[in-house]
Amino acid sequence: MQQLTLVKIGGKVLDHTDQLSKVLDTFTRLPGQKILIHGGGKTGGQIAQRLGIEAPMIGGRRITSPEMLQVALMVYGGLMNRQLVAEIARRGGRALGLTGADLDVIRAHKRPVGEIDYGLAGDIDRVNAEALSDLLDRNIIPVMAPLTHDGQGQMLNTNADTIAATVASALAASFQTRLVFVFERPGVLTDPDDDGSLVSHLTFEKAEAYKTSGVIAGGMLPKLHNAFGALRAGVKEVIIGQAHATDFNGTTITLS
Amino acid sequence: MQQLTLVKIGGKVLDHTDQLSKVLDTFTRLPGQKILIHGGGKTGGQIAQRLGIEAPMIGGRRITSPEMLQVALMVYGGLMNRQLVAEIARRGGRALGLTGADLDVIRAHKRPVGEIDYGLAGDIDRVNAEALSDLLDRNIIPVMAPLTHDGQGQMLNTNADTIAATVASALAASFQTRLVFVFERPGVLTDPDDDGSLVSHLTFEKAEAYKTSGVIAGGMLPKLHNAFGALRAGVKEVIIGQAHATDFNGTTITLS
Repeated sequence: MQQLTLVKIGGKVLDHTDQLSKVLDTFTRLPGQKILIHGGGKTGGQIAQRLGIEAPMIGGRRITSPEMLQVALMVYGGLMNRQLVAEIARRGGRALGLTGADLDVIRAHKRPVGEIDYGLAGDIDRVNAEALSDLLDRNIIPVMAPLTHDGQGQMLNTNADTIAATVASALAASFQTRLVFVFERPGVLTDPDDDGSLVSHLTFEKAEAYKTSGVIAGGMLPKLHNAFGALRAGVKEVIIGQAHATDFNGTTITLS
Repeated sequence: MQQLTLVKIGGKVLDHTDQLSKVLDTFTRLPGQKILIHGGGKTGGQIAQRLGIEAPMIGGRRITSPEMLQVALMVYGGLMNRQLVAEIARRGGRALGLTGADLDVIRAHKRPVGEIDYGLAGDIDRVNAEALSDLLDRNIIPVMAPLTHDGQGQMLNTNADTIAATVASALAASFQTRLVFVFERPGVLTDPDDDGSLVSHLTFEKAEAYKTSGVIAGGMLPKLHNAFGALRAGVKEVIIGQAHATDFNGTTITLS
């Protein structure tokens, strides 16, 4: 089975040219097949503000209004995705920018309205693993924006961590799959003020204990939820960490 | 040899939802392989204006400043390209949005500075016909934005008519290639005020005579220049016209 590494980069990395450059250097040099998944970053909010578009929030949650979806299409689907592709091409990689609509790779539906109407937020129905495997077999590097479609012509906004975990899960049967969440810290820390407190290996049991004791909290919780979901679906390991010279290192997460 | 139709749509069509919808219906139903190439439209200028970015002009020519390139990446490479892909997907087509950087399909260089510095405008060096043929052979419909790259990480702005003609020329050796420029009028007219004056067939000789007599002038001249260039490169026919129920019709252009 061929090796596949999925690397997810978010706002913190995308907003810093030097960090991004290091990540792309390491990413392009990785052996085996690879997929880059990118989130947003400050630029989306900045462009929305300059366009006079307000990012609506309900109960502390971001809502994807039609105007905010247009901003996401412009900034994530256009500016960022196209520049990432050009940067990988510069490094000799054969990159291909994708949203869920391209080759119908990710079909989603508008999140059902419950207590909150999240607007044009998409929950994933299925990943077209065949189309993605086909690209990977041809040494193409998919670069995935946090956008999906519903098959009826409507684009939808989907969280990049979720896309990364769901795509990794869908490909785990065909590849030796590894999922990397690039993080602004060296990995999971037991003391947020001490980089030396890095947890080098995290199992489900250990993670539950850390959650109970409050060592792991906040934004790390959904990341770990996605990580264990991917591991249960057959992904070999999940890494939360940073780019080093030849690979991504940090906290390695396995089921047991 | 398989049939290939390249259809180029510009601003006039992109700005009218009903016209665009008709073009996409006809396009998706065409037999054989196909490629859609799209230009800009009013949205680019509108977004630039809302962002407070001025589109610089020198001697009546548009200059691609770094800010305008960002707008092109957002609006043409993001908003428009992604929505066109989703619209074709809705019609059952397997579409794939591309800029020149994706799979390195169009390599270009910044236009050399002569009397005018056009800024980040790209003149095409080469089309990756192999990568495009490979997609077409898999029944994938490339949807091409008017953006190229220089292989050094720099995206560039390239005219969509030029992309259409150059890509058609590059594929003419592998496919029975037909190039359609979708137009706001029924085709080339001898009397601009009378749709009944449509020239149904135009040869190089006839076009030269019309140019001399002034019947063909203005924006039609670069279109015809691109058309005859493509025909000389082996493209079977060029059509300047509109979407009808089952095909695009208007003025058919051949060398002789």
